Amino acid sequence: MSERTLKSIEELIKFHGKPKREVYFDGENSGRVLKEVIEAMLPYFRDTGYGHPSITNKPGWEAYEAFSKASELIAKTLNVNSQDLIFTHSGTEANNLAILGGVRANKHLGKKIIISAIEHLSVIFPAKELEKTGFKIVEVPVDSEGFMDPDTLESFVDDDTVLVSIGYVNHEIGTIQRLREIIEKIRDKNPNTIIHSDVVDAYGRIPLDLTKLDLDMATLSSHKIKGPRGVGVLYLKEGVNLEKIIYGQLSTQEYWPGVENVPLVVGFAKAAEIRFTNFEEKVNHMRKLRDMLIEGIMDKVPYVILNGPKGERRAPDNVNLSFLYCEGEALTIEFSFNGVYVSSGSACTTRVLEPSHVLVAIGRKYEEAHGSILFKVDPEHTIEDIEYTLEVVPKAVERIRMISSAKPREV
Amino acid sequence: MSERTLKSIEELIKFHGKPKREVYFDGENSGRVLKEVIEAMLPYFRDTGYGHPSITNKPGWEAYEAFSKASELIAKTLNVNSQDLIFTHSGTEANNLAILGGVRANKHLGKKIIISAIEHLSVIFPAKELEKTGFKIVEVPVDSEGFMDPDTLESFVDDDTVLVSIGYVNHEIGTIQRLREIIEKIRDKNPNTIIHSDVVDAYGRIPLDLTKLDLDMATLSSHKIKGPRGVGVLYLKEGVNLEKIIYGQLSTQEYWPGVENVPLVVGFAKAAEIRFTNFEEKVNHMRKLRDMLIEGIMDKVPYVILNGPKGERRAPDNVNLSFLYCEGEALTIEFSFNGVYVSSGSACTTRVLEPSHVLVAIGRKYEEAHGSILFKVDPEHTIEDIEYTLEVVPKAVERIRMISSAKPREV
Repeated sequence: MSERTLKSIEELIKFHGKPKREVYFDGENSGRVLKEVIEAMLPYFRDTGYGHPSITNKPGWEAYEAFSKASELIAKTLNVNSQDLIFTHSGTEANNLAILGGVRANKHLGKKIIISAIEHLSVIFPAKELEKTGFKIVEVPVDSEGFMDPDTLESFVDDDTVLVSIGYVNHEIGTIQRLREIIEKIRDKNPNTIIHSDVVDAYGRIPLDLTKLDLDMATLSSHKIKGPRGVGVLYLKEGVNLEKIIYGQLSTQEYWPGVENVPLVVGFAKAAEIRFTNFEEKVNHMRKLRDMLIEGIMDKVPYVILNGPKGERRAPDNVNLSFLYCEGEALTIEFSFNGVYVSSGSACTTRVLEPSHVLVAIGRKYEEAHGSILFKVDPEHTIEDIEYTLEVVPKAVERIRMISSAKPREV
Repeated sequence: MSERTLKSIEELIKFHGKPKREVYFDGENSGRVLKEVIEAMLPYFRDTGYGHPSITNKPGWEAYEAFSKASELIAKTLNVNSQDLIFTHSGTEANNLAILGGVRANKHLGKKIIISAIEHLSVIFPAKELEKTGFKIVEVPVDSEGFMDPDTLESFVDDDTVLVSIGYVNHEIGTIQRLREIIEKIRDKNPNTIIHSDVVDAYGRIPLDLTKLDLDMATLSSHKIKGPRGVGVLYLKEGVNLEKIIYGQLSTQEYWPGVENVPLVVGFAKAAEIRFTNFEEKVNHMRKLRDMLIEGIMDKVPYVILNGPKGERRAPDNVNLSFLYCEGEALTIEFSFNGVYVSSGSACTTRVLEPSHVLVAIGRKYEEAHGSILFKVDPEHTIEDIEYTLEVVPKAVERIRMISSAKPREV
């Protein structure tokens, strides 16, 4: 990073000051770790279980115990065995392991890889890498709300299909796929095809039973439920072939070398424990805030489009709105000065000045995609947070539209 | 992990109890994070800079600022630019990126990869993977203290040599290579060859100036200087080609996708700041404790061999001793019951019941390698810790030799 950029950002922070209320809605990209999670992690940095889980000394045994219990707790929330969880350092790494390692280990099954156009980039990019080595990528289209048609998907599956990777809940627009039906159709058509799902945005939001779903692989990420960054998980069904993609000394993990990050894994487990205590209540709370936000904004602000579906088939935490005649980047900054922290476009593609690939896939025009803002509510948010946001947003949008050259005459 | 194992480990911990003094010497595999480091990390989990460094909102800008400053601090300790540091989640990942990504990006330079027999497994294993795709691995031999002969190494370098990877300080036996001389000889023989060094065990132990050394790539790991686990760094000299090995959305990092783990990187920087404050004093302290431990044990316990060199050419923190007629695993357990926490064999290969590849490479017999114990001292250790250890070790060794079937008659 350049000194000039750092300097300008330091000045920006100084100028920004502390708003009277702060609401962080950028759970897509990062997140405020829960207090109880921080407390749960703390002892493991220095006081207990700070050892290596595979080494035969007390801090090592304590580490093994803590890691095992954390792993078992997470496994229970998914209705799988803890032996079938592979801990990586991010969802991105887990998706890479699934796609690269899953395809390479099963290449005898065929040359075709099926994904969708709205997958996370950590699924799409590894697939594109495999394309360079002779695999064929087929992208399932989605409709204007981001849904895939199970029959269309089924029609793509053939005897040459090695892997299908379909995200359960879309990261950006919250579309919940009919995953159970999709999996059944794939199994009917080719029982050998390996099925992976990025369930990062389903976990802690909708009921998730990996055994019932009959997936071969599934990806989780700790920070998406307010655990610490630095823990991703790949569930691997017993008996499914996988190849390593990173090589070195193994500890308790068969497919990811290096020492387990015990404090962070303990933190992830604590976040899971909290999320799944009174789960339905938390989901209903999120859904309520989500709808307050969507309806409140659409009610108060003209020229706003909802991206993704409404109601039950939308993730309970996802609010993605396109503010027409606005530059999304300008909006995130204006919101920020008022203490409302969001991201724009594909949250993940902000520095790359291209519209989100998800919004393009559902047919949004360039200017619609560019004015999109993603809010993710979580169980910690309150009604007051939403009410405050509903005060901030209309004024901020008005201000940005005033100074924007793209505004329509009548606004 | 199985329920049975967990249960037996829980019983073991209960039986173990808390020894009157506890000294953790297993810095090779894990470590107690410094108090000041934990304090430095804490705010970034929830209170400030908890955002995504590439997103334009206040927590994002704060994250960018914290990350940039941490990165610059670390870069300064190496005399390089922060733009040339790539943050991964472990030393293992950084070594994989160097070997796999470095060779693939420069394959036009040749087919030969030169490493040594005593490299870290996260260097050896990726090299072996490349061997499967047509590259040729040449292993430089080492002498009985682990030294490579620069002339022998030079004789292996030819026009077909794409990469040389030679660790500066050996993880297990502390041998400090004549790296500057080795690099000069490689450059003379083939100026195009990419030179990588795993400097994980040199950092914070011997003076390290990456610019002067003229390396193309170098690997660091946070937990080796009592920072948190979960941060590895690959230094990449400007202009050197590298290919990614994990694919996804990039943030500030060009070669490792995913969100930066800001709290942990801040922690690593704090650990570096502390380690390099009164650096010489800390090194002298470690060297003093190291020699107290080596001399004290060899004086008090019969049939002990030092693995690796003595004096200035040995890392100041490294004590690696083979206790003959002992099973190393049994010793680590006996030591543990007395509060002295160490690892055996290759610390890293304990669960794999094979002798350390490093000890085999320096000519240790099977039984010598199996009785080896690695102690790593660090600046937090005190003379009292060493004195306590010198009380514990002789008794523990005597006890294990008494119950061991491998003991000689006269012991």
